[in-house]
Amino acid sequence: MNTLKIGLIGTGFMGKAHALAYQAAGNVFEDISRPVLHKIADIDGERARLFQRQFGFASYTQDWQEVVNNPEIDIVSITTPTLLHREMALAAIAAGKHVHCEKPLSPTASEAWEIVQAAEKAGVRTQSGFNYLKNPLLKYARDFIASGELGEIYAFNGIHAEDFMSDPLSPYSWRCDPAGGTGALADVGSHIISISRFLLGPLTSIFAQLDTVVKQRPAYPGASELKEINVDDVARMIVTFERGCSGTIQANWLATGRKMQLEFEISGSKGALSFTQERMNELLYYKAGDDSRSNGFRLIETGPQHPPYGEFCVAQGHHLGFNDIKTIEMAEFIRAIDRGEPSSPDFREAWEIQKIIDIAVRSHRERQWQIIS
Amino acid sequence: MNTLKIGLIGTGFMGKAHALAYQAAGNVFEDISRPVLHKIADIDGERARLFQRQFGFASYTQDWQEVVNNPEIDIVSITTPTLLHREMALAAIAAGKHVHCEKPLSPTASEAWEIVQAAEKAGVRTQSGFNYLKNPLLKYARDFIASGELGEIYAFNGIHAEDFMSDPLSPYSWRCDPAGGTGALADVGSHIISISRFLLGPLTSIFAQLDTVVKQRPAYPGASELKEINVDDVARMIVTFERGCSGTIQANWLATGRKMQLEFEISGSKGALSFTQERMNELLYYKAGDDSRSNGFRLIETGPQHPPYGEFCVAQGHHLGFNDIKTIEMAEFIRAIDRGEPSSPDFREAWEIQKIIDIAVRSHRERQWQIIS
Amino acid sequence: MNTLKIGLIGTGFMGKAHALAYQAAGNVFEDISRPVLHKIADIDGERARLFQRQFGFASYTQDWQEVVNNPEIDIVSITTPTLLHREMALAAIAAGKHVHCEKPLSPTASEAWEIVQAAEKAGVRTQSGFNYLKNPLLKYARDFIASGELGEIYAFNGIHAEDFMSDPLSPYSWRCDPAGGTGALADVGSHIISISRFLLGPLTSIFAQLDTVVKQRPAYPGASELKEINVDDVARMIVTFERGCSGTIQANWLATGRKMQLEFEISGSKGALSFTQERMNELLYYKAGDDSRSNGFRLIETGPQHPPYGEFCVAQGHHLGFNDIKTIEMAEFIRAIDRGEPSSPDFREAWEIQKIIDIAVRSHRERQWQIIS
Amino acid sequence: MNTLKIGLIGTGFMGKAHALAYQAAGNVFEDISRPVLHKIADIDGERARLFQRQFGFASYTQDWQEVVNNPEIDIVSITTPTLLHREMALAAIAAGKHVHCEKPLSPTASEAWEIVQAAEKAGVRTQSGFNYLKNPLLKYARDFIASGELGEIYAFNGIHAEDFMSDPLSPYSWRCDPAGGTGALADVGSHIISISRFLLGPLTSIFAQLDTVVKQRPAYPGASELKEINVDDVARMIVTFERGCSGTIQANWLATGRKMQLEFEISGSKGALSFTQERMNELLYYKAGDDSRSNGFRLIETGPQHPPYGEFCVAQGHHLGFNDIKTIEMAEFIRAIDRGEPSSPDFREAWEIQKIIDIAVRSHRERQWQIIS
Ligand SMILES: NC(=O)C1=CN([C@@H]2O[C@H](COP(=O)(O)OP(=O)(O)OC[C@H]3O[C@@H](n4cnc5c(N)ncnc54)[C@H](O)[C@@H]3O)[C@@H](O)[C@H]2O)C=CC1
Ligand SMILES: NC(=O)C1=CN([C@@H]2O[C@H](COP(=O)(O)OP(=O)(O)OC[C@H]3O[C@@H](n4cnc5c(N)ncnc54)[C@H](O)[C@@H]3O)[C@@H](O)[C@H]2O)C=CC1
Ligand SMILES: NC(=O)C1=CN([C@@H]2O[C@H](COP(=O)(O)OP(=O)(O)OC[C@H]3O[C@@H](n4cnc5c(N)ncnc54)[C@H](O)[C@@H]3O)[C@@H](O)[C@H]2O)C=CC1
Ligand SMILES: NC(=O)C1=CN([C@@H]2O[C@H](COP(=O)(O)OP(=O)(O)OC[C@H]3O[C@@H](n4cnc5c(N)ncnc54)[C@H](O)[C@@H]3O)[C@@H](O)[C@H]2O)C=CC1
Repeated sequence: MNTLKIGLIGTGFMGKAHALAYQAAGNVFEDISRPVLHKIADIDGERARLFQRQFGFASYTQDWQEVVNNPEIDIVSITTPTLLHREMALAAIAAGKHVHCEKPLSPTASEAWEIVQAAEKAGVRTQSGFNYLKNPLLKYARDFIASGELGEIYAFNGIHAEDFMSDPLSPYSWRCDPAGGTGALADVGSHIISISRFLLGPLTSIFAQLDTVVKQRPAYPGASELKEINVDDVARMIVTFERGCSGTIQANWLATGRKMQLEFEISGSKGALSFTQERMNELLYYKAGDDSRSNGFRLIETGPQHPPYGEFCVAQGHHLGFNDIKTIEMAEFIRAIDRGEPSSPDFREAWEIQKIIDIAVRSHRERQWQIIS
Repeated sequence: MNTLKIGLIGTGFMGKAHALAYQAAGNVFEDISRPVLHKIADIDGERARLFQRQFGFASYTQDWQEVVNNPEIDIVSITTPTLLHREMALAAIAAGKHVHCEKPLSPTASEAWEIVQAAEKAGVRTQSGFNYLKNPLLKYARDFIASGELGEIYAFNGIHAEDFMSDPLSPYSWRCDPAGGTGALADVGSHIISISRFLLGPLTSIFAQLDTVVKQRPAYPGASELKEINVDDVARMIVTFERGCSGTIQANWLATGRKMQLEFEISGSKGALSFTQERMNELLYYKAGDDSRSNGFRLIETGPQHPPYGEFCVAQGHHLGFNDIKTIEMAEFIRAIDRGEPSSPDFREAWEIQKIIDIAVRSHRERQWQIIS
Repeated sequence: MNTLKIGLIGTGFMGKAHALAYQAAGNVFEDISRPVLHKIADIDGERARLFQRQFGFASYTQDWQEVVNNPEIDIVSITTPTLLHREMALAAIAAGKHVHCEKPLSPTASEAWEIVQAAEKAGVRTQSGFNYLKNPLLKYARDFIASGELGEIYAFNGIHAEDFMSDPLSPYSWRCDPAGGTGALADVGSHIISISRFLLGPLTSIFAQLDTVVKQRPAYPGASELKEINVDDVARMIVTFERGCSGTIQANWLATGRKMQLEFEISGSKGALSFTQERMNELLYYKAGDDSRSNGFRLIETGPQHPPYGEFCVAQGHHLGFNDIKTIEMAEFIRAIDRGEPSSPDFREAWEIQKIIDIAVRSHRERQWQIIS
Repeated sequence: MNTLKIGLIGTGFMGKAHALAYQAAGNVFEDISRPVLHKIADIDGERARLFQRQFGFASYTQDWQEVVNNPEIDIVSITTPTLLHREMALAAIAAGKHVHCEKPLSPTASEAWEIVQAAEKAGVRTQSGFNYLKNPLLKYARDFIASGELGEIYAFNGIHAEDFMSDPLSPYSWRCDPAGGTGALADVGSHIISISRFLLGPLTSIFAQLDTVVKQRPAYPGASELKEINVDDVARMIVTFERGCSGTIQANWLATGRKMQLEFEISGSKGALSFTQERMNELLYYKAGDDSRSNGFRLIETGPQHPPYGEFCVAQGHHLGFNDIKTIEMAEFIRAIDRGEPSSPDFREAWEIQKIIDIAVRSHRERQWQIIS
């Protein structure tokens, strides 16, 4: 069996998710090269050391450059704060690595574009961490819509709302640093933007309002010193799609009580789909025109009939979890590398998403509709 | 327009429900005689007086005999504690009245049978207050099953669970007096029994266990004196139906947190139905054999396509409430009287339900399956 | 007991709802004057005649002027297409009647203002048909927010979406005539606007986009001839509130599969509330700061603890329906008349709502934020 | 890092689940010996070969004896049809291996007892595959109940219902062979029995009814030849617990539309818990006595506050899936081996569960309550 050596940068929330997902991908999916965890880097050397031990990396380092420059490594996975993505991604690309970089790709579209161009010129595969697209039900939804089962699309409502910054005492973190991009919009909004494009295609114009409701936060966990917040914690957009319909997209860090309200509803002339990541193994489908006495939204449960669920479990009703969709993401990236085929969502797609975020910011500042060129 | 004069006995929970329902029935339904509230009786004269005023009865009395013997009255509605039903119903029948009596008809099947015989001999119309059968969705469910849409019926699970006696400090009341029949089984269990028969037909055998979990209660609201409880607060039955399938039926007064868990699920070879009175305007339907990728339980919402919803509202999605189904009950009773047709569920049906309760008690005592003859 | 004589104009969807609600109000609520259905008017004389018979009006007419000018009548209820409200309301006010007029009050805010001024000058009571505010759970939500239980309000999301125009073959009707005001925005959007104000107070600015997705419809039911549609079928707004928070408000006629998605979520620093009219007897409440292991949204079910539910039923878990909240509306109007106290929502409130709609239209046309003055 | 060598028998549904879970356990959990997939056996040699390749076992075999007798192997995992468990488990124990055996442990309690005795004499660790107990929410529920948060327990309702045999054309399989034990009762019923014991402790008596609704099935997939079915496809039990409460337990293979209705509700004097594996990341909790206006069932979502969720993901709202709970199962087994501590649920617990099944069969045959000794 072929193997691919992985270099991972970052040992935080996503660092762990990547390490687990690469390992699982090689186990769950038979048709792909087996990823081997080779080197882990974290600026916090002790974290890197522990991480190496836990996940069985061959070695660890405090210096991420050692990862991107290691000649044995095939894939570099970047899971550091967004502000750092650009430098690391460019270096990895320059070293000829295939690069997975967490979302959002970078603080601005122009930086993202720089990375895209470097990657495309270098001919390396790229992957952007919009993991929610990997849910078998979302793939099914996309194909369902594409095949015309919903008829003409009338409207889209999308939101990604969580409450992890709802408490005004939730402290400042790198996510609050405007140098790293917008706040809720980049952090969670990018996910629902990616879904809107995945299901319905390109957006053409945006009107946005960005709020910063909680204006000060403790400078660090438990601090009494307060730091001013200059990124949005709630973002609202009205958008239009190239295919002709309109919709709303929202991002929210202050949605008290909500842990994962990544939700959409799509209405069309022949039917509708409704989904929330809060119940990620369920998709609601309404088929217009059935006998009205016995018609209503159907609660579809994921199963082997929604590939690649069957790789995880042969029977319907046995839920996939978040780590499983991250596993699908890694498997698809490796498959694309194996076959020399396009990966998805790649850095170009991440740039498209970042453009929307940048344009939303401009719309908010200028208080005007903006065309997406 | 024809009118029918109503004599009502009892001004409690159900007394009010009847008064409102008779008035609404005449307004909502065009094709029936208009019920006119004529005389109200309650042993508590002050309550009767206030009730008369509020609902516009022509007169009131402390003596229920004045109701049953009033020559102007066409229909007598009995909403007193169960223990009192027999005497009142027999007197009303003897006076040639059509009689509506709340459920359960009486503490035992033999008393119920006495009433049935008297009514059938007298040729008066009778109605028993199993109101939940009047939900348009239940009528639809019954017809749906009867027409074979679920195929061969495999199994039934039914329960009526509430928590109104869950607190051990909820006091003793007439519902706890064994002279009035069983406890939870008669009080709420009779409803789910009525539904099981309505949807699936006669039962043939029963195994039952009756529990009295809370063994003492305050003798009256707020009392420190405790009174022993000798009726069941949880009842469980395994049952068989004449049509060949089996199932479970439960009654529960101690279902902490549940306000109206009157629920059933029916599985068949071609489909399934699931319902809970907690969401009385929704019926879940699963149709076997549809494309498995887009199949699942459908959430049907009541609408004009489920008669007689349309009499209340012309548009789907505008919920019916409890008082509306009580209104349908009264309208159907009056229509039966108008047309000289059978009413349903009549006293004979109430007797059938009471037989099941009696046999459940016997099964519990003898710890044996019992045949329903 | 005092009585109030009702003159009703219109025998359609709302005409029936009013007739039933007046009758029920007198029965359910003890403390108010008893409404008596006196005269019914409909331009379709045959409908008026049948309606009179069904609901027991003293008389009927084809000429609505006979209602407003009838000296015996105390209250005039207007349930005709919106375009006709102004003339009828002004005439009724001029005749010194208390006036209930269905929502929206009129096609434009300036017409609404004319009516408000006339009514206030005449000193008559007015009521506007925003019935959803009468749900006991919404009253509870309003008080809950006002008492600070949610802390500082962060955000509001509101929508009223139905699918009754989702099928492109759903025909043109008076609701599609721009002379009567906007489309979905006025028709259903006005409800969610009324809720946003009811719960959170005045709005200060709006950005709106109005869509007309289905551009042609059959000229009448079954017609092959098509008529152009010049009103919105989907409307989206970003709004700000005087209290400092922002939100979204949407209206939709094309929400395939949705029968009554009148929904909101309000997040605050101490908690959140979520509600949908699809489950009008349930309110979701999240209380921030509870032990995270056992915390989550609570499903509150309506009960007597949420007045005036107890007037309908003494026990929790017995649902109210749409007609019941219409009954509460009528009872409150009558009580206001009885006591000479302000009614709510009155015509002034309806004018406030209409202003928002007008300003939304302007925002859409000018593609700009608009201040609500 | 220590390693433990795994020998696996069986490459079907559970064989794959075990292989994935052992691999993931070593990655997710830092504190345990790393399991290494050493040898895979399947009577179908080609399956074994492919499985070896996919999951990276060191070798494969057609002969399971080679697994149990391989001196390098530490743990033997048995995932063959139930009928075969006994011989394999006894051989593995005899060879001094720690043994994981899928549920149910064996067709009868007496065989299970033989295995338990052998294992306890040999002093090896054992684990039984009742994976649903490994859900962090179930662990939380158990501790919650044990700490008295629900007060005195009133009642238990449990069911495990699926529809995978609902279609009469679903063929005969080893699950239908009475030599392997009961049908639905052993197959899915054993899970809900394990949960009832996990949460509430020992059962004391049972009354059971076992149904065989579908009496013939195709002899093999697609066969026209039919084979008689002699095991139950629906099983119903009324049970009592040592702690004093009663309840129901059901198993069902014919629950049309249900993919994983593994569900329970527990009511107590101070609160209630409700759970369904259909939404395995949610637990409903009702706390009695809170302000009734804002009280209701709370929807708890799994998070790091429910260990060991945090090993998989640092943030709440990111679902665990079925494979994750199987991973927890394996990690706990390995930890027990590492520490020389009891594992749970071990073979003795599996025997306790099997006793209940045997006694249920006896109760069904004798149509009598049976005491569990
Ligand atoms: N796909 C998804 O659903 C999610 C994606 N993300 C994205 O993943 C990225 C990382 O986020 P988290 O894992 O939540 O952050 P985190 O703060 O948990 O982890 C970041 C890690 O990067 C390390 N790091 C920082 N500077 C470094 C340097 N110069 N060299 C090496 N290591 C360095 C830190 O020590 C830390 O271990 C972000 O871009 C974020 O937007 C985060 C959460 C979910
Ligand atoms: N269909 C349904 O869903 C329900 C049916 N019921 C049934 O309705 C009946 C009454 O129950 P509730 O209304 O809840 O009881 P309640 O206790 O609220 O009211 C009983 C009324 O009967 C009066 N009463 C007692 N003795 C009397 C006498 N000798 N003469 C005249 N009046 C007398 C009492 O003063 C009281 O007003 C019972 O049979 C009960 O099972 C009760 C609740 C719901
Ligand atoms: N509160 C709510 O939830 C709802 C409010 N409405 C509002 O109620 C009003 C009426 O709507 P619907 O009842 O649905 O309309 P509809 O079309 O069902 O009924 C309108 C009635 O007015 C009559 N009418 C028309 N011109 C007349 C005239 N010159 N004189 C006398 N009668 C005349 C028609 O013959 C018809 O009976 C509208 O303003 C609408 O927005 C409608 C539905 C729900
Ligand atoms: N924990 C859980 O949730 C579940 C547990 N199970 C249990 O797992 C066990 C296996 O069930 P499944 O995996 O569904 O069965 P399966 O039929 O999918 O797989 C059984 C495997 O055993 C192999 N096998 C048969 N005889 C053999 C022999 N003599 N030597 C070596 N291999 C042999 C077969 O070739 C097949 O690969 C059963 O005891 C079942 O009750 C099954 C499904 C779910």
